[in-house]
Amino acid sequence: MSRYRLTIEYDGRPFMGWQRQNHGPSVQGAIEDAIEQIIGERCTLHAAGRTDAGVHALAMVAHVDTNSGLPPFRLMEALNARLRPQPIGILDASIAPGFHARFDCIRRRYRYHIVNRRTDLTWQHGLAWRVTVPLDAEAMHDAARLLTGCHDFSTFRSTKCQSLSPIKTLDRLDVIRTGSDIHIHAEARSFLHHQVRSMVGCLKFIGTGQWTAADLETALLARNRAALALNAPPDGLWFVGADY
Amino acid sequence: MSRYRLTIEYDGRPFMGWQRQNHGPSVQGAIEDAIEQIIGERCTLHAAGRTDAGVHALAMVAHVDTNSGLPPFRLMEALNARLRPQPIGILDASIAPGFHARFDCIRRRYRYHIVNRRTDLTWQHGLAWRVTVPLDAEAMHDAARLLTGCHDFSTFRSTKCQSLSPIKTLDRLDVIRTGSDIHIHAEARSFLHHQVRSMVGCLKFIGTGQWTAADLETALLARNRAALALNAPPDGLWFVGADY
Repeated sequence: MSRYRLTIEYDGRPFMGWQRQNHGPSVQGAIEDAIEQIIGERCTLHAAGRTDAGVHALAMVAHVDTNSGLPPFRLMEALNARLRPQPIGILDASIAPGFHARFDCIRRRYRYHIVNRRTDLTWQHGLAWRVTVPLDAEAMHDAARLLTGCHDFSTFRSTKCQSLSPIKTLDRLDVIRTGSDIHIHAEARSFLHHQVRSMVGCLKFIGTGQWTAADLETALLARNRAALALNAPPDGLWFVGADY
Repeated sequence: MSRYRLTIEYDGRPFMGWQRQNHGPSVQGAIEDAIEQIIGERCTLHAAGRTDAGVHALAMVAHVDTNSGLPPFRLMEALNARLRPQPIGILDASIAPGFHARFDCIRRRYRYHIVNRRTDLTWQHGLAWRVTVPLDAEAMHDAARLLTGCHDFSTFRSTKCQSLSPIKTLDRLDVIRTGSDIHIHAEARSFLHHQVRSMVGCLKFIGTGQWTAADLETALLARNRAALALNAPPDGLWFVGADY
């Protein structure tokens, strides 16, 4: 039995999310099916993060155990051939004894992309969130300081979240504007379900002036999902990388 | 009669190119049809550059004359509503008496995007050129110095090119690598048909080591299409902007 570590890029648009589903295509399901076709074994893939429907990844990390004995480069090439034309690509594969993609991960990195303009998206359709109201990115960045550090993030947590505790340490939440593009960089050891999208939704309220920084603080301290301004759509969310 | 200046973004994948065609969808045709539906006049759109099938634009500039008297913002909003769901977006519109999008343009800016990796593209499929052989971007950048300045670019010119002269002045040709992304920035007052793609094809030969800088110089001095290494595919080419 060998453990393989995989680095995976995917376009989340056609998928119900990372996790295998009975009612539609998933990234995990597509890769597990491809592995079965290649080596005849049914395996389970474990990922650093389980992204939602419509969320993308530039470098998701996952591991899988097989008895195949296939050299990792051969496995990668065979997977990429089988996965085509689905928009999933294995960028790297290696043998990694004892490695656990989920439990060993010390930092998850996400990026949320807002395009702040009136005009509909063209080539970025489904890859970013278009916000038509002008956003004050500096005010968003300043307010985001309230969220970094260790907090009870219950307000920013999906009702379906399975995490044992709502207390998380957010290491980075930076809002950077370049022209009409606004990128929000979020880093933490781990996130609650919907945490990034919920934080982005509240920062959007700051950016439009609907909320002040004090409103954001009130929402955080409420520790209550009902205090949330908005959950941002999945389109703009990218899983950028996992550190070990 | 008012002259409107438009700034246009489009995803080139579904189109036969900028120019109106009888045998398939074009960007020019889509916008001219939308104008006719809105104001009931048949107009002709003039663009800074006529991109080929599969080539994209972040900010194409065009002008059109109409008798509608519509405020430019209204025209932009109506066009964007009509163009949906085609991946064409009007980013800006203004009244510009005497302005000519093609003849007044003093600089066209293109960017060519290569993704240098083995794995198939996912979300960038059709938006970049994947080159699987490792490329030496520094060697490409150094060799590109041979092409900047005023030259007879006959080698880099499509047989269908309608330009009166093959002599052009290339102001910029920079090759910049960031990870597996290689961006080639090209700027000139005007380009020959296929010039950017032809230059990129030759630089790719430099990057793989199939060609030396001396081979590129020989190809340039040949002033003959037959001396071309390769015409790069349209997927990676983006019309970035036009200056006036």
